[in-house]
Amino acid sequence: MGNTFGNLFRITTWGESHGKAIGCVVDGCPAGLELSEEDIQVELDRRKPGKEYTSTRKEEDRVSILSGVFEGRTTGAPISMIILNKDVISEHYLRIKDSPRPGHADLTYWLKYRHRDWRGGGRSSARETAGRVAGGTIAKKLISSFGVKVVGYAVEIGGVGWKESNENYDEQDYLRFYEMAEESPLRIPDRDATEKAIDLIESIRKEGDSVGGIAEVVVLNPPPGLGEPVFNRFDAALSMAVMSIPAVKGVEIGTGFRVSRMKGSENNDPIILKDGKIRLAKNHSGGILGGITTGEPVIIRAAIKPTPSISKPQRTVNLERMEEETIKVEGRHDPCIVPRVIPVIEAMVAITVADFMLMSRIIPQRIE
Amino acid sequence: MGNTFGNLFRITTWGESHGKAIGCVVDGCPAGLELSEEDIQVELDRRKPGKEYTSTRKEEDRVSILSGVFEGRTTGAPISMIILNKDVISEHYLRIKDSPRPGHADLTYWLKYRHRDWRGGGRSSARETAGRVAGGTIAKKLISSFGVKVVGYAVEIGGVGWKESNENYDEQDYLRFYEMAEESPLRIPDRDATEKAIDLIESIRKEGDSVGGIAEVVVLNPPPGLGEPVFNRFDAALSMAVMSIPAVKGVEIGTGFRVSRMKGSENNDPIILKDGKIRLAKNHSGGILGGITTGEPVIIRAAIKPTPSISKPQRTVNLERMEEETIKVEGRHDPCIVPRVIPVIEAMVAITVADFMLMSRIIPQRIE
Amino acid sequence: MGNTFGNLFRITTWGESHGKAIGCVVDGCPAGLELSEEDIQVELDRRKPGKEYTSTRKEEDRVSILSGVFEGRTTGAPISMIILNKDVISEHYLRIKDSPRPGHADLTYWLKYRHRDWRGGGRSSARETAGRVAGGTIAKKLISSFGVKVVGYAVEIGGVGWKESNENYDEQDYLRFYEMAEESPLRIPDRDATEKAIDLIESIRKEGDSVGGIAEVVVLNPPPGLGEPVFNRFDAALSMAVMSIPAVKGVEIGTGFRVSRMKGSENNDPIILKDGKIRLAKNHSGGILGGITTGEPVIIRAAIKPTPSISKPQRTVNLERMEEETIKVEGRHDPCIVPRVIPVIEAMVAITVADFMLMSRIIPQRIE
Amino acid sequence: MGNTFGNLFRITTWGESHGKAIGCVVDGCPAGLELSEEDIQVELDRRKPGKEYTSTRKEEDRVSILSGVFEGRTTGAPISMIILNKDVISEHYLRIKDSPRPGHADLTYWLKYRHRDWRGGGRSSARETAGRVAGGTIAKKLISSFGVKVVGYAVEIGGVGWKESNENYDEQDYLRFYEMAEESPLRIPDRDATEKAIDLIESIRKEGDSVGGIAEVVVLNPPPGLGEPVFNRFDAALSMAVMSIPAVKGVEIGTGFRVSRMKGSENNDPIILKDGKIRLAKNHSGGILGGITTGEPVIIRAAIKPTPSISKPQRTVNLERMEEETIKVEGRHDPCIVPRVIPVIEAMVAITVADFMLMSRIIPQRIE
Repeated sequence: MGNTFGNLFRITTWGESHGKAIGCVVDGCPAGLELSEEDIQVELDRRKPGKEYTSTRKEEDRVSILSGVFEGRTTGAPISMIILNKDVISEHYLRIKDSPRPGHADLTYWLKYRHRDWRGGGRSSARETAGRVAGGTIAKKLISSFGVKVVGYAVEIGGVGWKESNENYDEQDYLRFYEMAEESPLRIPDRDATEKAIDLIESIRKEGDSVGGIAEVVVLNPPPGLGEPVFNRFDAALSMAVMSIPAVKGVEIGTGFRVSRMKGSENNDPIILKDGKIRLAKNHSGGILGGITTGEPVIIRAAIKPTPSISKPQRTVNLERMEEETIKVEGRHDPCIVPRVIPVIEAMVAITVADFMLMSRIIPQRIE
Repeated sequence: MGNTFGNLFRITTWGESHGKAIGCVVDGCPAGLELSEEDIQVELDRRKPGKEYTSTRKEEDRVSILSGVFEGRTTGAPISMIILNKDVISEHYLRIKDSPRPGHADLTYWLKYRHRDWRGGGRSSARETAGRVAGGTIAKKLISSFGVKVVGYAVEIGGVGWKESNENYDEQDYLRFYEMAEESPLRIPDRDATEKAIDLIESIRKEGDSVGGIAEVVVLNPPPGLGEPVFNRFDAALSMAVMSIPAVKGVEIGTGFRVSRMKGSENNDPIILKDGKIRLAKNHSGGILGGITTGEPVIIRAAIKPTPSISKPQRTVNLERMEEETIKVEGRHDPCIVPRVIPVIEAMVAITVADFMLMSRIIPQRIE
Repeated sequence: MGNTFGNLFRITTWGESHGKAIGCVVDGCPAGLELSEEDIQVELDRRKPGKEYTSTRKEEDRVSILSGVFEGRTTGAPISMIILNKDVISEHYLRIKDSPRPGHADLTYWLKYRHRDWRGGGRSSARETAGRVAGGTIAKKLISSFGVKVVGYAVEIGGVGWKESNENYDEQDYLRFYEMAEESPLRIPDRDATEKAIDLIESIRKEGDSVGGIAEVVVLNPPPGLGEPVFNRFDAALSMAVMSIPAVKGVEIGTGFRVSRMKGSENNDPIILKDGKIRLAKNHSGGILGGITTGEPVIIRAAIKPTPSISKPQRTVNLERMEEETIKVEGRHDPCIVPRVIPVIEAMVAITVADFMLMSRIIPQRIE
Repeated sequence: MGNTFGNLFRITTWGESHGKAIGCVVDGCPAGLELSEEDIQVELDRRKPGKEYTSTRKEEDRVSILSGVFEGRTTGAPISMIILNKDVISEHYLRIKDSPRPGHADLTYWLKYRHRDWRGGGRSSARETAGRVAGGTIAKKLISSFGVKVVGYAVEIGGVGWKESNENYDEQDYLRFYEMAEESPLRIPDRDATEKAIDLIESIRKEGDSVGGIAEVVVLNPPPGLGEPVFNRFDAALSMAVMSIPAVKGVEIGTGFRVSRMKGSENNDPIILKDGKIRLAKNHSGGILGGITTGEPVIIRAAIKPTPSISKPQRTVNLERMEEETIKVEGRHDPCIVPRVIPVIEAMVAITVADFMLMSRIIPQRIE
C-alpha cells in the first residue's frame, strides 16, 4: 500500500533506478482532458538531472503513454506512463553493495526487506520521483482547466536566501517569483541570491560535500472549501504528500515554525471584504484554516536536506562481515538537489489539489 | 472520510464542543489487551483544561467504554468510547454566530458547509482532540506491550526555549525530559525556562493576547523497518498525523528545517557497531531514513500557533449582513495551548506507530 | 478496518448484543440534509424483532443522535447514533460459553481472537445490524432528495415463492411489490404466498427448526454511470455490501445464476429508444453493464440461510475441555429471519448508492 | 480508485484491449519470494484464448517483469508487469463505434465517460483480466509458500453439470477435480459432461449464439481466522473480488442459494474433533462462519453469463444519430468463456487470500 497516493485521483509509481524502467499509473482522471506525451515531457525535463549545478548523469527520460488516452483525450481509464532506463551502469555499486551509504535508505531497506536492489538507490532513488512528476503533470493540467495553478521556487539554498515572509504577497507576486525562478539555474527568483548560491555550491562541490535548502510551493486560485476535517485536512494531506519526497525533512504551512514566536493578535488574519468578496487581510495562515482552504493562496514550505551522496570518506558497517569500515561514495553526485526537488513538490501538491477537488465534487467525472 | 485515521489500527472521532457528547471508535486493536476506563482517564486528565496557565473551562471528561472490552480485556471488536458534554453554555456564541473569529475555522466551515454549528468551535474545537487522546491511549498501551513508548514535552514557548538539537541524546535522556516536563505546568523539562515562560504568558494574558510554541514528541525503542515506501513513509504518515491537529502549522523530523543550512558531511549520520548491533553515531535523521525507521529514537517537532481566541478587538465580516465589523471574542481562553496539545501529539504519534506495527506484522491479531 | 464501510459516504458500527449499547457513526454526509431521530426510528422499527413470526425478544431500540445534526439539519460533521441495550439477560449464555453453537460465529471468533464476548452473538449478533439500518436511513434520505429510492421484499421463504424473473417489470411494479410487502408479516408481496409461508414457518417452529429464503432489493431511478471500473464496479461493491450481512450466503444481480442456462441472444438486453431516451428493452442485466449503472432499476437478490439458532440438539466441541458434546440452544429464536434482514439489505444498498453518487460527484458537499 | 484492488496486497491493472499494452502493478508482496517471468507465463497461458472451444484470436501474451524482482527474488518494491498488445486489428470496430453492443459495457462507458475507446471492449474487454491473472500468480506463489492453494473448475456449462453439492468433499477431492479439469478443454472435471457440453457448444456456435455456466473455486488449507468483521468479512471481500470480473452475475459461498430451501438443522455444520483438531463434520458453510474462515476449504461459486458478443442480429441505438438500428457483431467470438474465466476467478481469490493473510499478520514482511 506504500506505492499509491491519493483517494479519488491516485498515482501508483513503480521502478528502480537501475532496473528496466520506471513508471506511473494515474487512476481517477476524469474523461475528456486533452493530454499528450509532450505535455508530460515538458515537466519531466524540468526535474531532469544533467542541468548545470545538479548531477551530470545523462537520462533521456522519454515518457510513453500506454493507456487511458484515446484520440488525444483521456477516457477515464487508468493512464499508464513508462520511462525506460537507458543509462544503466551499476558496476561501481557492486563494490559497496554490503556497505550502506550514510544518509541513504540502504540501511533501512536492508533492515526491512533484507533482500534489496543495491544498484544505485533502487526504489529509494531520486529517479522514482520522475514517475511522480509524470503523474503530477496530469494533475496540473486537470486543475488548470479549473483555473488552479501550482508554482514553486527556492527560498533558500545553503543558507543563502532572498525572502522572509509570505503574508503580504498576492497571486501576481507568486507568479512572478515562479517565472523568475524558471530562469535561474537554481530556481531562485532573485539574481543576486542565485549568484551567491552558485558560488557557495561551487566551493562545496570542490570539498566533495553538499548543501540543502528550503523550497516554497504555492497553490494559486484554490477553490475555498478543500479539506476533509478532522484528519484528512488539506494541510495534513499536503504534509504527507510533501514529506513523502526523498530528502524532505520538514514541512510548514503559511508562517509555519515562525508562528511559534508570534502573538495571536499578530498571527490571526483579519477577515475583510474586498470587491464584495470575503478575503483575508494577510495570509499568515497560508490559505488554510481548520484544515480547509480559505481561497487565499496555499503556501507550503519544505526543508530539503543536503544530498547524502558525498565523496568525502564516511563511516559505515559492512553488513556481510559485520565490521565497521570507511567508504567513499563514487560517481555523479548533485552538490545540491533543491532545484530538482521543486518540480517534484509541485507534482505532489498538484496531485493533492486534484484529489481534493474531486472529493469536494468540484471536478466532475467528465470534462466536455 | 475525514474523521477516520489509520489503516489497520484506526480511530474515528465524532462530536462537537457544545453538542451532547464526543467520542472515539477504535478499530483494529488486537484481542487480549488489558484495558480499563481508568487507563484512558489518566491520559484525558493530562490534556484537560482547567490546569493552571491554560483555559479555566471546567470539563469533567469522564470516559465510558461502551464496547470492545470484555472482562477487562479487548476482544478485537471496535472499542467505542464516549465523553458526555456537561459544561454547555453557548449563549455567548449566539451573538457572534454570523461573525467568524479570525484564526478559527468558523469562516472555512461556512465556506464549505454553509450550515454550521456555531456553538463554540463545533467540530473544529480543541475538544474534539479528547477523542484522539482516548484512542491514543489504547495505542500507547498496545505498543508499550511491545516495548515502545511515546513521550512529549515543550521545546519552546513564546520564544523561551531550553534545548537546541537532538543528535546526541539517547533514550534515557528523552525519558528524563518527559518526566521533568510532567512536573512543569507548561510541560517544559527545565525549571528556569518554565519560570521565564510563565512570566511571559502572564504578561501576554493581561494584554488579552496569546503565544505559541514548539513541541517535541519522541518514539522510544521503535522497531526498525516501520514505514511503507514510497508514499506511506513513516515520516510522511507522522506528518499527516501531527499536522491534522488543530493549531499545528509545521512538522519536522530529526534536525528538520535546520538541515537546510547543513552540509551533507555534517548531516549524514555515520553507521557504527555498538554492542554488536548496527547503530547510528548521531541522530540527525530523527530515526528515519528513506521513510523507514532505523531503530534510533524517532523525533518529531511541531510548530503550534498562538491560540486564535484572544480578547483584543479584531476585524471580521458579518456573514449575514455582509459587512465588515469588529469583534471581541469573550469567554475563557488559553493564553497558551502548547502544554495541552502535547498529549494530543503523543496520541496521534502512538496511533501511527501502532498502525505501522500492525502493517509490518510485528503485532499479531491477538495477544496471549 | 473491518468495522467501516464505504469510501466518501461511510458508516462505522460498534457494539455487542449484550454490551452497554450499540451505535453507528456516519461520515461524509453532505451538510444541509434535514434529519431527525424520528426518521431513523421508523426504519429501526421495520427491522425490530418482536414482530409476529420473528423473535420475541423485546428491544426498545430508541436511537439518539449525538452529533452532526444542528437545528434539524446535518452539518457535514460525523453523525453519531447510539442505541442503548436494555434487555440484557445473558445468564443462559454462561452455560454454553465454551460450547460454540453450530452455524454461528462462536467458533471462528474463538479461532481468531481467542478472548471473546460469549454473551449472545456478541459482535456477530443480528443486533449489530441495527447500526447499519440507522446509517442506511441517512443514506436513504440523502439519495431520495436526488430522486433515488431503495425497496425490498421477500421472493421466497422456505421454498414458498411468488415471482420468477425480473426482466419485464418497471419501477411502478417494484414500488407496488414493496408496498404490498410492507403489509405482509413476512414481507412477501403476495397474500397467498404469505399464508402458505406462515403455515410452513409455524410447523417448522414446532419442530424446533428454522427456514431461510431469498430477498430482493431494487434501486429505483438510479443515475446512469455509477460504478468505478474495473474493481470497484457497482455490482462488485453491492455484492460486498450485501454479503457482509450475517446469514447472507449468496448474491446475484439481475438474472443472476439463471443466466448460466441462457443463451446470449436471450440474455442480452436490446438497446432501444423510449420517449427519446436510451433504454433497455428488458432488464436481464439488472441495471448494470460492465459494472456501471444503465439507468434501469438495479436488482439485487440475496440468499438468506435458516437461522442457526435452533432448539434441536446439535453436536459441538467444548473448547475448555476439548471434548465433543451435544448442546441445545435455549432462548428466543427466530424460526425465519428473512423479513428482518430485508431492511438491513436495503440499508447496505442505500449506503452503497450514496457512496457512489458522491464518488461520481452527483451529490455535492452541501445541499441548499 | 476503481483500478486498484486489495489493502496490504494490492494489484493495479491498466490498459485497453486494442491499446499499446496492458499491465499490472503488484504492491505489498513481501521481499524474498522467488519469482520469474516463466511463473507468470504459465498462468497467463491457462487463460489464453486460441484454445479449442474458445476464441480464435491469437494473443501472444508474453509478460515482462519491469521492477520489484532482483536476482530472482522479490524485494518488497512494486512489481510492474507488462504485456504488449500485438494483434491490433480494430478497423471492424470503426463501423460500430456509435452502436453500443447489447450486453457489453459500450453503452455504460458512453453514459459515464462520453469519450470512450471504441476499439474492441477497450478497458472493459476480457483482455484486462490478463493483468489480474499476472497479479494473481504472484499471490498464488506467495500463499503456496504458506501451504495454501487455490483451484478452480467448471460445475456447469449451458446447463450441463456433473456435481451437486459440496458438503462431503475433502481437500483431496478438490485437488482431483482440479487436475481432471485441467485435462478438459472446458475445464469440466468429468469426461461425459465435457463431451455433452462440447456438443452443446458446437450447436450453439452454429446458431451464432453463446452459452454461460457456473464455475467453482476452492481455497485449500486456508488458515483459520481470516476475515475482518463486520464489513470486510472474508466472504464479503471474496464476493467483491469475484463479482468484479466481467461476465460474473452471481456469487455464492458454500451451499449458497440452495440454503434458502434448507432447514437450520440441515444447514448447520456440526462441530467435531478429528485427530485432536476442531473440524466441521460437513461444509455447508463453505469454510466461512461469521465472515471468518473455519479452516475447512473455502468454496466460492460464480455464475457466468453467456458471451454477449454473438453474430445474431441485435437491436441497438446509434448514439450519433440517436436512432434505433440493428447490428451484427462480427469477428472472433467465444461461444463460451467459462473455461477462460476460471483462472481469472482463481487469481482474484488468491489475491484476496494473500491480502487477508497479510492483514492477519500470518505472512511477514519478508520471507527468508
